[in-house]
Amino acid sequence: MTISSEQAREIAAARSESTRTLRPTVPLLEEIMFEATPILDHGFLRVVDYMGDDNAVVQAARVSYGRGTRRVSEDAGLIRYLMRHWHTTPFEMCEIKFHAKLPIFVARQWIRHRTASVNEYSARYSVLDREFYLPEPEHLASQATGNRQGRGNVLGKDEAQDVLRILTEDANRTYDHYTAMLNEPDQPGHDPDRAGLSRELARIGLSLSTYTQFYWKVDLHNLLGFLRLRADPHAQYEIRVYAEAMLDVVRRWVPTTYEAFLEYRLGSLSLSATAIEMVRRALAGEMPTFETSGLNRREWDEVADRLGLA
Amino acid sequence: MTISSEQAREIAAARSESTRTLRPTVPLLEEIMFEATPILDHGFLRVVDYMGDDNAVVQAARVSYGRGTRRVSEDAGLIRYLMRHWHTTPFEMCEIKFHAKLPIFVARQWIRHRTASVNEYSARYSVLDREFYLPEPEHLASQATGNRQGRGNVLGKDEAQDVLRILTEDANRTYDHYTAMLNEPDQPGHDPDRAGLSRELARIGLSLSTYTQFYWKVDLHNLLGFLRLRADPHAQYEIRVYAEAMLDVVRRWVPTTYEAFLEYRLGSLSLSATAIEMVRRALAGEMPTFETSGLNRREWDEVADRLGLA
Amino acid sequence: MTISSEQAREIAAARSESTRTLRPTVPLLEEIMFEATPILDHGFLRVVDYMGDDNAVVQAARVSYGRGTRRVSEDAGLIRYLMRHWHTTPFEMCEIKFHAKLPIFVARQWIRHRTASVNEYSARYSVLDREFYLPEPEHLASQATGNRQGRGNVLGKDEAQDVLRILTEDANRTYDHYTAMLNEPDQPGHDPDRAGLSRELARIGLSLSTYTQFYWKVDLHNLLGFLRLRADPHAQYEIRVYAEAMLDVVRRWVPTTYEAFLEYRLGSLSLSATAIEMVRRALAGEMPTFETSGLNRREWDEVADRLGLA
Amino acid sequence: MTISSEQAREIAAARSESTRTLRPTVPLLEEIMFEATPILDHGFLRVVDYMGDDNAVVQAARVSYGRGTRRVSEDAGLIRYLMRHWHTTPFEMCEIKFHAKLPIFVARQWIRHRTASVNEYSARYSVLDREFYLPEPEHLASQATGNRQGRGNVLGKDEAQDVLRILTEDANRTYDHYTAMLNEPDQPGHDPDRAGLSRELARIGLSLSTYTQFYWKVDLHNLLGFLRLRADPHAQYEIRVYAEAMLDVVRRWVPTTYEAFLEYRLGSLSLSATAIEMVRRALAGEMPTFETSGLNRREWDEVADRLGLA
Repeated sequence: MTISSEQAREIAAARSESTRTLRPTVPLLEEIMFEATPILDHGFLRVVDYMGDDNAVVQAARVSYGRGTRRVSEDAGLIRYLMRHWHTTPFEMCEIKFHAKLPIFVARQWIRHRTASVNEYSARYSVLDREFYLPEPEHLASQATGNRQGRGNVLGKDEAQDVLRILTEDANRTYDHYTAMLNEPDQPGHDPDRAGLSRELARIGLSLSTYTQFYWKVDLHNLLGFLRLRADPHAQYEIRVYAEAMLDVVRRWVPTTYEAFLEYRLGSLSLSATAIEMVRRALAGEMPTFETSGLNRREWDEVADRLGLA
Repeated sequence: MTISSEQAREIAAARSESTRTLRPTVPLLEEIMFEATPILDHGFLRVVDYMGDDNAVVQAARVSYGRGTRRVSEDAGLIRYLMRHWHTTPFEMCEIKFHAKLPIFVARQWIRHRTASVNEYSARYSVLDREFYLPEPEHLASQATGNRQGRGNVLGKDEAQDVLRILTEDANRTYDHYTAMLNEPDQPGHDPDRAGLSRELARIGLSLSTYTQFYWKVDLHNLLGFLRLRADPHAQYEIRVYAEAMLDVVRRWVPTTYEAFLEYRLGSLSLSATAIEMVRRALAGEMPTFETSGLNRREWDEVADRLGLA
Repeated sequence: MTISSEQAREIAAARSESTRTLRPTVPLLEEIMFEATPILDHGFLRVVDYMGDDNAVVQAARVSYGRGTRRVSEDAGLIRYLMRHWHTTPFEMCEIKFHAKLPIFVARQWIRHRTASVNEYSARYSVLDREFYLPEPEHLASQATGNRQGRGNVLGKDEAQDVLRILTEDANRTYDHYTAMLNEPDQPGHDPDRAGLSRELARIGLSLSTYTQFYWKVDLHNLLGFLRLRADPHAQYEIRVYAEAMLDVVRRWVPTTYEAFLEYRLGSLSLSATAIEMVRRALAGEMPTFETSGLNRREWDEVADRLGLA
Repeated sequence: MTISSEQAREIAAARSESTRTLRPTVPLLEEIMFEATPILDHGFLRVVDYMGDDNAVVQAARVSYGRGTRRVSEDAGLIRYLMRHWHTTPFEMCEIKFHAKLPIFVARQWIRHRTASVNEYSARYSVLDREFYLPEPEHLASQATGNRQGRGNVLGKDEAQDVLRILTEDANRTYDHYTAMLNEPDQPGHDPDRAGLSRELARIGLSLSTYTQFYWKVDLHNLLGFLRLRADPHAQYEIRVYAEAMLDVVRRWVPTTYEAFLEYRLGSLSLSATAIEMVRRALAGEMPTFETSGLNRREWDEVADRLGLA
């Protein structure tokens, strides 16, 4: 279960209390404020606060006094210019705060992005819930052969069933042992003759698939940096689904920046000095092959595919 | 002049457009949103956006789902606990954006605080206004003798007049030369026979007292770090006045955090291991002197003064 | 086992190749370069590179040209001054790089310190070893009662035995399942009829006690910030032992900074505004009690204990 | 004058004291350690410390134990792979410390790169030297017309002479006034009847062309980020000359990373999604024009030029 009924009530209560503000407000984002978008089997992502909009990017780049007096097309042009030329500070002027529930192994990848603020649920202080990630059978795949850190073909039905049985049994067993070692006074099965193990130690036997949660606050520039890596097809599926949900939040929040991001980052291709030479020769009529390209196999495959040279 | 009438109109226009939001809103801060608080002779500070409130600190520390269900006194206790134990990430959950106009030598000190986002007016791109800082006579002081980087006694009237005359004449002359070298087509005195010097070069003769402006966005934790150093009596007066204005913004914005900050940071005293021993002996009846304290002169002076040992 | 014989050979080889350099060198630190200090049951910490020394702090604070011409006592005085007044950038001028092997739950705490560089062993790319942390019986303790996130009394012998048996069995079982799901071609027990699960998925059933390793590079200022929190008695034992090993490295590397750190950070006491008032009254003869102190219970306990007021 | 004879002696002394170390050492970089490379009329750049080499990048990416056992070609391939795929943390494992002397307006641009450590000469504490930047006549140019923040044509001889005369006279006059206002006891012309203005105030009349100096420490990843922007032809000439000197340091220090940086960053071209489509069509025989490209004028100009489509 993604959220409890009590949590749902708290969210509904928060959604019912609007106030007036002089700050820039984004109606499309307000529509989904606080709502938990379900992700994976027990996870979610929700927006709990934000600051700024597309116009804040423009306003900072121009260091202007009011809400902006230029035409919308000029603002969009400026945002595209800033994105194309790798300007960073104007995009830092927007900030967003998410509440995410996610498996620990996903949190470990996520937290590698350091320019953000995080407050995670503390398993030294509190007891974790019995929730762990179990992949859908169609996401159980073998090691990739081309790429040494990704997934290849989906497992056959029998092997997938075996894997799921193992993961389920181990997660349940280690969680049972977790509660048994804790021996919390207010839990069923409490044994008054045992002291119970401290929370900071009892947790160490839990699996990396256990769910945790955190508040994560980041500026738009660093969020886009996160999305560039984690919404990429080479990212692990289990973090990519969070990135894709965030990408949709960005679309609601700062639509002009979102379009520029698709154009100049997610959908772009970086040509190396050697690849530029190859394309120049190709455009002059000398169609390249891998052998004449001067590129290594991997770069050739990627560039040839994107430019239709295959 | 701090702001032009056109800028005042833009600010008034921004203050007239409120919207509804589900985000936490702080009425006391909304009261002053966008308004320019005059600082020094031509500078100002104004709040242009913010995110979060005291409750956001509590909510992040508890990783909770709604707006908080505990009593106010518990929340205040938690904030004080977090401040006293040097927790940082809950205070990072609040963010504020200022627009400041300030002399360049102040901007140079300010920018040394790196964990913040800045967009400064570009003098490569635009022409700077004829505005420079001239201290009030009562702020013109000689070099401090005890502290090697501060101010001592106020200058006598004649010396102060001389200083002000020099600073005024030099600033005006270098600004006149700035516009003459620029030779901008749309400026009075434009000479069609000269090409004019590029902006990025013409500015290099301007004085450090020239006003610049920037958008500055920072989280509450790093803002408090800034204020701890810059609202301190040892900070240079010209940056301290900005810090004091920000301190008043913090009071409006997050009053509980503000109180905890005064109690545990601005008004606190850090005792070294040696000073702890000295206080222990003093409390046991053995009143210390500088000679028996084991402290160096400077630390003794500070500790003795704060603890009433003089 | 902490390191394999092959790894020991690589370390010995690295220790045998010295070169000449013009950079500042610290003989006491060179003595232990590359050596793995064993920590916990399978972990270690080793210094793999460093830059700067005490003198680099002094040199940066003075922005001087050579290696320093002042007397040692002046340099020590300057370092103590910088530490006492919370200067940060001179201490950022020294940098150190560690290689650590540590349980994942410790790595999760460690990585919360964001101002550092990390390269962790990738379990998407490589297979983890069969190594997991099992506490010594004397470190198995119940939940603390005073402090809601620490440990209290050591468990009785029977309960400790049960806990260790559970942790050992679960860790072994989940590791067995890990290798079975991976079904790596070059491993014993490889089943050619199964595709094997990708590494990025097979790992999710492993326990948080599994060992990982990383390269961690940090400047001296941020290292001291880490040590202030993690060498503290309230830190979890399993990270504190790494912090203590690093503290000893700091002693070898920058002895003057180390002494100043003990004096003004680790061994210091921060008095709040209210506590200062209480101490003033006490020194004036009005001995305080908890009731008259104005402090909350927790702060009173700590201050009274440190100042001998109990 | 770039450095005084006393400073030259200190540098020579530092260069004469080598020691043995187990750390990786880079002979080509040791050759220039501490030496001041003259830049502009009074500035310089010198390397005062470093840590790591190309192999440190490889070692961190592999989290390996020794100095590396793979062949050089494999290491170069890995570094190129890491650069091409925007990996950052392995390049953070190398660190370098520069001592730079530079005009204040250059320092203001430089310091905008926040992920670095800086200790600047303090004009609150010390007196600045009589040194200010005066451009060579061939660098005095008018405002660019295409690019709104750069330089265009070089000024005519007469206009250039006028500009230089103004800049020289103003800088000398404001410096004369600086020393007069300071009225330092140990300076010629000291007037015992005046108190003298504090250093933190007297400096505010100095021009932005005045030289300052700082120690600047940065990791290789962030240094390359700096160089990508500041070694670019669009960067202001006066900071670009420092970037070019640093680029040469990078070539000596980490030659394999340097080559990969030229190939995948400095010499690369980022194609937007629209530009990719245009190139695909061109390679299929449908030669594009600005009108059919779908690009804006500026992007078209840049892409067409780089790909030889003009």
